[in-house]
Amino acid sequence: VTDAAAAWLGVPREHPFGLHNLPYASFTVPGEEASRVGVRVGDAVLDVAAAAGSLAPGLAPVVAGGTLDRLLASGPAGWQQLRSAVAGWLSDPALQPVLEPLVHRLDDVRLGLPFTVADYVDFYASKHHASNVGRILRPGQEPLPPNWKHMPIGYHGRAGTVVVSGTPVVRPTGQRREPDGRVVVGPTARLDLEAELGFVVGVPSVHGHPVPLRHMEQHVFGVCLVNDWSARDVQAWEYVPLGPFLGKSFATSVSPWVVPLAALDAARVRPPARDVPPPGYLDDADAPPGGFDVRFEVRLNGTVVSRPPFAGMYWTAAQQLAHLTVNGASLRTGDLFASGTVSGAGPDELGSLLELTTNGREPLALDDGTSRSFLEDGDEVVVAATAPGPGGRVVGLGEVSGRVQPAVRPG
Amino acid sequence: VTDAAAAWLGVPREHPFGLHNLPYASFTVPGEEASRVGVRVGDAVLDVAAAAGSLAPGLAPVVAGGTLDRLLASGPAGWQQLRSAVAGWLSDPALQPVLEPLVHRLDDVRLGLPFTVADYVDFYASKHHASNVGRILRPGQEPLPPNWKHMPIGYHGRAGTVVVSGTPVVRPTGQRREPDGRVVVGPTARLDLEAELGFVVGVPSVHGHPVPLRHMEQHVFGVCLVNDWSARDVQAWEYVPLGPFLGKSFATSVSPWVVPLAALDAARVRPPARDVPPPGYLDDADAPPGGFDVRFEVRLNGTVVSRPPFAGMYWTAAQQLAHLTVNGASLRTGDLFASGTVSGAGPDELGSLLELTTNGREPLALDDGTSRSFLEDGDEVVVAATAPGPGGRVVGLGEVSGRVQPAVRPG
Repeated sequence: VTDAAAAWLGVPREHPFGLHNLPYASFTVPGEEASRVGVRVGDAVLDVAAAAGSLAPGLAPVVAGGTLDRLLASGPAGWQQLRSAVAGWLSDPALQPVLEPLVHRLDDVRLGLPFTVADYVDFYASKHHASNVGRILRPGQEPLPPNWKHMPIGYHGRAGTVVVSGTPVVRPTGQRREPDGRVVVGPTARLDLEAELGFVVGVPSVHGHPVPLRHMEQHVFGVCLVNDWSARDVQAWEYVPLGPFLGKSFATSVSPWVVPLAALDAARVRPPARDVPPPGYLDDADAPPGGFDVRFEVRLNGTVVSRPPFAGMYWTAAQQLAHLTVNGASLRTGDLFASGTVSGAGPDELGSLLELTTNGREPLALDDGTSRSFLEDGDEVVVAATAPGPGGRVVGLGEVSGRVQPAVRPG
Repeated sequence: VTDAAAAWLGVPREHPFGLHNLPYASFTVPGEEASRVGVRVGDAVLDVAAAAGSLAPGLAPVVAGGTLDRLLASGPAGWQQLRSAVAGWLSDPALQPVLEPLVHRLDDVRLGLPFTVADYVDFYASKHHASNVGRILRPGQEPLPPNWKHMPIGYHGRAGTVVVSGTPVVRPTGQRREPDGRVVVGPTARLDLEAELGFVVGVPSVHGHPVPLRHMEQHVFGVCLVNDWSARDVQAWEYVPLGPFLGKSFATSVSPWVVPLAALDAARVRPPARDVPPPGYLDDADAPPGGFDVRFEVRLNGTVVSRPPFAGMYWTAAQQLAHLTVNGASLRTGDLFASGTVSGAGPDELGSLLELTTNGREPLALDDGTSRSFLEDGDEVVVAATAPGPGGRVVGLGEVSGRVQPAVRPG
């Protein structure tokens, strides 16, 4: 197996979706209803279910069913076997006659929700983001809540409204309290985006038994990009004391491509020094580096408005997994846990409009000459990301996009 | 169709599980793995999937699959057809030869999780409970948060740890802050119960489109009992600002029997007068009565410690459904939303130990001579309920039980 695709594919070694990446998606081809599992190589998608059927029938069950669900459940051995097999096929010139009919141009397919989302949890792991939000929403108070440096705090979101990139997002209606104290119901006036990294659980855990942080790779298959759309006015009025609910539950968008953790080995980094020593089950001082050097780009109507760095996140995915299960809560195949908004220290590294515009007070200038405090109807948000790959290459994580549609009239 | 079971069944007309009730469960018989859909009559369960196969093949798909999932999805027409058919079969003496082999004694079967839980939402709809919690946890402050009378506040719980009655509950481990400010990790010292009523969604809704409160019966199939186990020390330390998370996510128990809303017609009551006029989408002044006169009983190691009345709940299930979807969040088959702790005004009507013992300061005396502030290892909690049925009869809602097991040692 080489690390370059066979010449007939025309995918150079350094392509962000070269053989060092190989993310998976669920796709449909025009005129067919049933979805298939595909693997991305360059700007094409290989029907990996059909390929396995021809070349490795033993692997076929893992990629059957039209989504990544069975692959996720197959566990590290299945993940590794399939990944090796696919890289081998795509680098073997002799397989051109078999594979070429199974390769589709990306523009010719529709990408669907890649897996069945079981439970969706959203964390709050960027110290910059949490501090910014505290300063903006609770001025005069300590920006971080007292628990923040002791645990990766999080909450359960709505799994049923996780949608794939490209799905329009209808502006939600809800209650908010106006500055004069009146409670009004109407379309949100403060629709926001949140750029996040999502971790996709493959292997379930036993109810009642915590998962140690060192076991993350035994359970987590890979990552996707997440836009955790937020209605800030709804959220501000509802969130005490039970947390975010309708301000978030209307839609959460995910990228169609799930990048295996195996493709992110070269992107591993040590997380920043912790201000407070974490308790034992969260202590990763002697563990392999838990951070990922994933570099985000947030585009609003084509203007790059931010480049948030994931490498500086205070809490790692391994710590989040350990925390999520320390009470014995079990994992299921398809559980999705997201990092929380990725924000860095710089003014051009903020992962939400709440921060980028200081709660709407300092509108952003866009390249088309307009400006934005929060999202307007018709706006398109694209969150894209890359990470360092092996040998100086880049790993593409693709993008998650969504366009805002006007609120639905009640009735 | 009469309202009495055929004589061969030996179920008197006034039995709480007579033909006016007919709740459904998922059950297995000894020696078999596959579960079946059953309907309860008296102290027996009819294999309704097998019965439909013989007597009404057109209905068989609705009760196939071993759980209530397909029945839930079949919608009001399917619910009504099956309910009428079952009542007809069970009251027809001529069907004894067909049905008798399909009836199992309740003691001979195992009852499973009745349906696949999609999203789980927990509300906070008792004014007495929310006020009590405010007084206990935030003394000196206004007991109710400012939003409480404007909307039924709630949060998403963990669907993957919803378990059926009888499942042991392992004492969760977690972080808490001691009165001296130290943060410690260990088994919860304040394990609590919460008696609640759960509403089970059958018919999905369209993403982006709110469900008006008057449409509740088009979406909600029925109710189950819920014990929303809570680790109060974990919850108190973690819940600001993102709400309850690990203090709840370790386990939520539900009763095996799902009682159709159709069995609760006689239990409908007007909710109490609202202190603040709710906004339009929550205004039920001209709607059919949204409350249910469900009467709870909470037993701890056999001692009845409380009899919480559901009739006095401030927010109704129809309002909760309207609120849950006002932002366009969609419903899925199997969504479960629970009322929040059911507490009445009286000291013997409180649905949690937090309230019954004033946060542990006033322990409860049990019949065995011991006392409890919070739950100890080995304790068994049973939450049972009944409601008024037609013609002076009683509708049994069964019970949800669980026994506390010692914490799992880390490692």
